[in-house]
Amino acid sequence: MNFIHTIEKKRDKKKLSREEINDFIEGYVAGEIPDYQVSSLLMAVYLNGCDEEETFELTRAMAGSGDIMDLSGIPGIKVDKHSTGGVGDKVTLIAAPVAAACGVPVAKMSGRGLGFTGGTIDKLESIPGFSVELSNDEFISQVKNIGYALIGQTGDLAPADKLLYSLRDVTGTVDSIPLIASSIMSKKIAAGSDAIVLEITYGTGAFMKDEKRACDLAGLMIDIGKAAGLEMSAVITNMNEPLGHAVGNSLEVIEAIEALKGRAAPDVLKVMKSVIPEMIMAGGKTEDRWEAWELASDAIASGRALEVFRKMIEAQHGNPFVTEDYSLFPKAPFKSGIYADRDGYLSIRDCAGIGECIKLLGGGRMTKEQEIDLSVGLELKVKNGDRVSKGDCLCEIMSRNEAGAEEARGRFLSSIEITDDKLPENNLVYTLND
Amino acid sequence: MNFIHTIEKKRDKKKLSREEINDFIEGYVAGEIPDYQVSSLLMAVYLNGCDEEETFELTRAMAGSGDIMDLSGIPGIKVDKHSTGGVGDKVTLIAAPVAAACGVPVAKMSGRGLGFTGGTIDKLESIPGFSVELSNDEFISQVKNIGYALIGQTGDLAPADKLLYSLRDVTGTVDSIPLIASSIMSKKIAAGSDAIVLEITYGTGAFMKDEKRACDLAGLMIDIGKAAGLEMSAVITNMNEPLGHAVGNSLEVIEAIEALKGRAAPDVLKVMKSVIPEMIMAGGKTEDRWEAWELASDAIASGRALEVFRKMIEAQHGNPFVTEDYSLFPKAPFKSGIYADRDGYLSIRDCAGIGECIKLLGGGRMTKEQEIDLSVGLELKVKNGDRVSKGDCLCEIMSRNEAGAEEARGRFLSSIEITDDKLPENNLVYTLND
Repeated sequence: MNFIHTIEKKRDKKKLSREEINDFIEGYVAGEIPDYQVSSLLMAVYLNGCDEEETFELTRAMAGSGDIMDLSGIPGIKVDKHSTGGVGDKVTLIAAPVAAACGVPVAKMSGRGLGFTGGTIDKLESIPGFSVELSNDEFISQVKNIGYALIGQTGDLAPADKLLYSLRDVTGTVDSIPLIASSIMSKKIAAGSDAIVLEITYGTGAFMKDEKRACDLAGLMIDIGKAAGLEMSAVITNMNEPLGHAVGNSLEVIEAIEALKGRAAPDVLKVMKSVIPEMIMAGGKTEDRWEAWELASDAIASGRALEVFRKMIEAQHGNPFVTEDYSLFPKAPFKSGIYADRDGYLSIRDCAGIGECIKLLGGGRMTKEQEIDLSVGLELKVKNGDRVSKGDCLCEIMSRNEAGAEEARGRFLSSIEITDDKLPENNLVYTLND
Repeated sequence: MNFIHTIEKKRDKKKLSREEINDFIEGYVAGEIPDYQVSSLLMAVYLNGCDEEETFELTRAMAGSGDIMDLSGIPGIKVDKHSTGGVGDKVTLIAAPVAAACGVPVAKMSGRGLGFTGGTIDKLESIPGFSVELSNDEFISQVKNIGYALIGQTGDLAPADKLLYSLRDVTGTVDSIPLIASSIMSKKIAAGSDAIVLEITYGTGAFMKDEKRACDLAGLMIDIGKAAGLEMSAVITNMNEPLGHAVGNSLEVIEAIEALKGRAAPDVLKVMKSVIPEMIMAGGKTEDRWEAWELASDAIASGRALEVFRKMIEAQHGNPFVTEDYSLFPKAPFKSGIYADRDGYLSIRDCAGIGECIKLLGGGRMTKEQEIDLSVGLELKVKNGDRVSKGDCLCEIMSRNEAGAEEARGRFLSSIEITDDKLPENNLVYTLND
């Protein structure tokens, strides 16, 4: 009966109290409030919004709905990094071992991919033997010993978010800034790190299509984290084209290893230069951005960053020799090319369409339960705005068979254009912090 | 999957197509669309509205979700009358037999009361033996023979409305003009009459609090009915004070019988003069409002209207002698008065509060399943704006015991005030028609 009053308040644009928000989350997790009432409230929140205070309270209540990871046994300032996801975004794979190699403990909890962007866990699982199923004790001791560990989301972390996310997904209430912010931040708060570096993506290859909303989301998440006592910063990344060259699980890991060897593509390097210094500064290693990047460059050049990555793989039962022998990765049996049919400049119109090629190839999930093929993907041979001549290879497709390649080819071609004029360059990254 | 798209369209203020609305109603009645998706759509409709065309389609789909009554076997233009409900509103009890006595066939389907207003069926069930459970054939032959029959809503009439209404009730989506209009009109269309006279109530004693919204609702319902090929008119009635003197089931039937005997209270008479001519004109008996009222007055003065009422009671297994001997009605054992504590003018501040006295006395429903006491109620001794002296009886309470009377007394006193100045008079009724 009381919950109807909560729905009516939000419906009538009134502010919900801390107590009302707590009762909502507690009642929903306890199974006392039915889905059909919660979805009505979610639509009211979608349309009428939440102010900052309501969003803080919602995040706090969701974070408190299950276990809170206790990382106090790990010395130092624990830094987490989160990306809202983008096509070809493999920055987490690179930044975490680099920061760890600079002495910043990274205790990372990741999700699987859903939709047109990949998930860090799926990518790493393309390493033969690699497992994200660690006990809490194993997780903590690995961070202590190696500086870096990565696990999947455990069931008892922010269970309210799990319930709400599934409901939002089927009730048209996903794309709401306060709901997105509280969903991500509740998990991050429960995951127990001291500082969080956010990579907020926008553009046709991200969930958030426009820059203004990405900045709003980043600002709100920073405020929520700070209200919860965390050190926060955010990097805003343009995802109107895939990041780097590889799109697809194992292919992105290989590109990440190349970056750890000092051979990052220019756009990947640009994002690394934004994200990694934030992590090193958040970890208290220096207050100077340039010095932070010097530390990072040194960790890469000396091979220490790659070494952390190898040790992490080994500790998590993966084959560490993948870093030297890429043929150890699962390999798609069929390889074909997409070629330019005219002279001009490559112009990517719909980056999500390129992400969807991976789904068509069997490498992306349609539902949470789906098994995916980690070997398939695309290797982009030219980047947005590059000059191409008729007959040039635009992209290589790694597929299970010819039919899959054909489907992906069609989707790829409908996502790009070859134009007479060069497109203006994207403003790739910029940083928001406290 | 498709229904999420429907939710998103309404969420984004886009217009739903006929097909989308049909799929929604069919899918929901078939159990294929879950409650949690429908409630999300209902909140989007509540907040973003529906245009007239969408509301027509929704009404049509709901009316078509079950059986449509076939009244074609009854000669003449069948007229239905519907009130949105108000405290002490017994006009349906009076208007239907008067119209029938003027030769207008009234095939009426009614609901039970819920909330602070009573339901016509509950009121009539206070007549010993009276039953609203007629078969369709009995119903039709009774209208043919007597001119008037009244049944409860059968299960197969507009089942979509039944489902949607229950869901709206618990998801904060009741008070939406397109949803209210489509709910009422779907049932009225399915009930099969040719013409409908609406009594749309507003004020503190009705569900609709303000006049503007009542007019909007009336206008929309007229348009919906006309689009469905029905003759429509509406009377807008102020319910800032109870209508007449009696509030409570059996007491209101007695007041209605008094009106059928030509002894209506002035405010009841005023609403009768608006509603009854509309029914007689809709039934094609005359096109002149004054002549219609003359026909009605004659039906009352000659006793023919009361005779129709008695015959209807008898045909539906009730004791027809109640019209002459009110002691045949169930009688509450305890009677007490509420007295003025100062001189001044009676000023009713919250008419719903007076309706709620009936609930406190056990004569109103909190849930649909609840058994109610049909004998309890209030008899108002003074009306809004009447001059009272300290010690005057304001109201008599008929209750089961002293404790009930005490509760009702408290609620009554908090709903009124005795003021130094006389309140401006309410503008009681006015009429909207094609």
